[in-house]
Amino acid sequence: MRAYELILRKRDGGALSADEIAWFIRAYTDGGIPDYQASAMLMAVFLRGLDDAELAAWTTAMLDSGDRLDLADVPGVKVDKHSTGGVGDKASIPLVPLVVACGVPVPMIAGRGLGHTGGTIDKLESIPGFRTDLDEAAFRRQLRELGGAIIGQTERLAPADRKLYALRDATATVESIPLIASSIMSKKLAEGCDALLLDVKVGAGAFMKDLASARLLAGTMIEIGARMGRRMAALLTRMDEPLGYAVGNALEVVESVELLQGGGPADLVDLTVEMGAEMLVLGGAAGDVVEGRGRIRGAVASGKGLEALGRLVAAQGGDPAAIHDPARLPRAPRCVPMRAGRSGWVGAIRADEVGLAAVSLGAGRSRKEDAVDPAVGFVLAKKVGDRVEAGESIGLAHVGGRFEDDAAIARATAAFTIVDEAPPRHPLILERMSR
Amino acid sequence: MRAYELILRKRDGGALSADEIAWFIRAYTDGGIPDYQASAMLMAVFLRGLDDAELAAWTTAMLDSGDRLDLADVPGVKVDKHSTGGVGDKASIPLVPLVVACGVPVPMIAGRGLGHTGGTIDKLESIPGFRTDLDEAAFRRQLRELGGAIIGQTERLAPADRKLYALRDATATVESIPLIASSIMSKKLAEGCDALLLDVKVGAGAFMKDLASARLLAGTMIEIGARMGRRMAALLTRMDEPLGYAVGNALEVVESVELLQGGGPADLVDLTVEMGAEMLVLGGAAGDVVEGRGRIRGAVASGKGLEALGRLVAAQGGDPAAIHDPARLPRAPRCVPMRAGRSGWVGAIRADEVGLAAVSLGAGRSRKEDAVDPAVGFVLAKKVGDRVEAGESIGLAHVGGRFEDDAAIARATAAFTIVDEAPPRHPLILERMSR
Repeated sequence: MRAYELILRKRDGGALSADEIAWFIRAYTDGGIPDYQASAMLMAVFLRGLDDAELAAWTTAMLDSGDRLDLADVPGVKVDKHSTGGVGDKASIPLVPLVVACGVPVPMIAGRGLGHTGGTIDKLESIPGFRTDLDEAAFRRQLRELGGAIIGQTERLAPADRKLYALRDATATVESIPLIASSIMSKKLAEGCDALLLDVKVGAGAFMKDLASARLLAGTMIEIGARMGRRMAALLTRMDEPLGYAVGNALEVVESVELLQGGGPADLVDLTVEMGAEMLVLGGAAGDVVEGRGRIRGAVASGKGLEALGRLVAAQGGDPAAIHDPARLPRAPRCVPMRAGRSGWVGAIRADEVGLAAVSLGAGRSRKEDAVDPAVGFVLAKKVGDRVEAGESIGLAHVGGRFEDDAAIARATAAFTIVDEAPPRHPLILERMSR
Repeated sequence: MRAYELILRKRDGGALSADEIAWFIRAYTDGGIPDYQASAMLMAVFLRGLDDAELAAWTTAMLDSGDRLDLADVPGVKVDKHSTGGVGDKASIPLVPLVVACGVPVPMIAGRGLGHTGGTIDKLESIPGFRTDLDEAAFRRQLRELGGAIIGQTERLAPADRKLYALRDATATVESIPLIASSIMSKKLAEGCDALLLDVKVGAGAFMKDLASARLLAGTMIEIGARMGRRMAALLTRMDEPLGYAVGNALEVVESVELLQGGGPADLVDLTVEMGAEMLVLGGAAGDVVEGRGRIRGAVASGKGLEALGRLVAAQGGDPAAIHDPARLPRAPRCVPMRAGRSGWVGAIRADEVGLAAVSLGAGRSRKEDAVDPAVGFVLAKKVGDRVEAGESIGLAHVGGRFEDDAAIARATAAFTIVDEAPPRHPLILERMSR
């Protein structure tokens, strides 16, 4: 009966106490509350919201459902970064070694691809031998020795969130600011970082379609983190077209290495430098973002970032030579050029469409149990604002020979809008928030 | 995926097509949609509502989930009555034989007690031998021969409603006007009546607490019935204090018989006469309600209503002698007087509290699988507006010797508010609606 009363109160717009929320989340995780009551509660929360106190209690309850990593024996202010998910966003791969090379430890627990967005774990696993399933002791040891590690979600951190997330995914209750914020923050608070940088994506290719909702989500997460004693900052960044040129696991590793070698696409470089600068400030290794940007650029120029990535790959069982020799990464058997249907300027590239097309090629999962093909994906040749001629290649599809390949290539090609006049340029980084 | 999309659309306030609703209800009934998706949909419907077209489709889909009784071979305009549930409301027991005695056939499928409210089926089953589980052939035969029958819900009428109702009951999605209206109307439309009178209760002891929501519920049900070609009328009636004096199954049968013998509590008599008059008008046996009232009062005075009840009881296997001799009905082993704590006037009697106290005595069910004790309950001695002296009996509890009896008696006693001045009288029948 107690579950019923709590659903009823939330349904009518009332507030739940911290004890009630703790009880509900615990009983659901333990199986004492059935899925059908939890989904009614989730829909009520979706439509009625959670106030600040409820949100803190909800997050704490999910955090308390599992272990908390204790990283006290890792020296320094440990800073992590979380992105709400984009297409072609491989920034974590160059970012972690660059920040580590500047002396700030980064204990990153990253995710897999979800929907049209890619995941850092899937990308890193395209490096032969790379392991992301380190146990807690190995994670801590690597952090002490190298200052950085990137591992996947473990069963033991925030199990309530895992169970609730699967239910939200089946009941159309995913896109709720308090539910998204508490899901992310319960996992990040469990991993033991002292400070957190959020990259909240905004636009057609992101979960947050407009600046107002992105601000709300960032503010909500900052509030939760600050209440729990974490230093928090957020960048709101545009996700209309894919970030960089590469979309696909091994293809994105190659582009990440290019950045660490001093090249790489301008938008990816800008985002990586800006986030690195923020992380150095959060970690106390730079007095302000101007100094931070300089230090990150210096770590690229000196090659220290690339060296740090090599060490990280080797420590996690990967082939460090693959960093310098893309031929050692998985390669698709066939490449198919994508052609512009007319001449003009690239007015838009729908990131979500390119992301879904990449999933169809096999770069992501349609169902949780699907395997990912690390080799396939797209390498675009044009970005928004570029000039194209009819019949010119606007990108290359790396395909594995699936039945769906032709339709996926057509879909990615159709994601390009070609217009008659050069479109205005938009800044990548829209806003900065911190606390 | 289709269930997901429909939940998402309703969540965002969009409308579902008739085909989509038909598919959702059918797939849920068949087990193709799990409970947790259905409960998310129910909560979304609860908070977002259904428009007229959706409501008609939802009702039709539940109706189509089972059989429809065909009563074409029963001559006359068949009229049924449905009450939204009150405390002490035994009106169906005298009403059906009175209307039948006036020549209008009544095919009634009635319910069991729910929450704090009693159910006609539980009350009738307190008559030794009375059977409410007639099959369709026996129901039809009795209607042809006697013109009236009162049976319980069958598994074959609107099974989708039964499954959805159980889920609503566990997920705090019961008190929704469109969900209540479609639940009632799908069952009533399935039973094959040509016209339907609704008794929509309003007040502290009813599911609808105020006149505005009662009007909305009545109007919604009238609209559904009219769309399906039924003649519809509704009375909005007050349910603040219990109806009559008796609350408890056999006790209410006794009070019903008193009415048919020319006595009975004034409020019960008023309601029965008014509803009977409406049913005669709906059935074409009276030109207007004034004529209808006269005919119903005549059937009481002539004893024809009592005779019709005796025939109905005998036809359904019950002991007709029990009608005239209350000693043949189950009797509780012990009676305990309830005492007024102070002198004054009865200002209010909380019907829901009396109803819940009666459930505690055993007159209703706390869980679906509980058995009902037909003998127990309360017979109040005072109604709102009556004068009481401190220590005077305000009612008699008929108890079976349960652990909970003392607390239940205290609860029923506390349901009385005694005030210093005689309270104003309120009319029982608040409004009439028809179509």
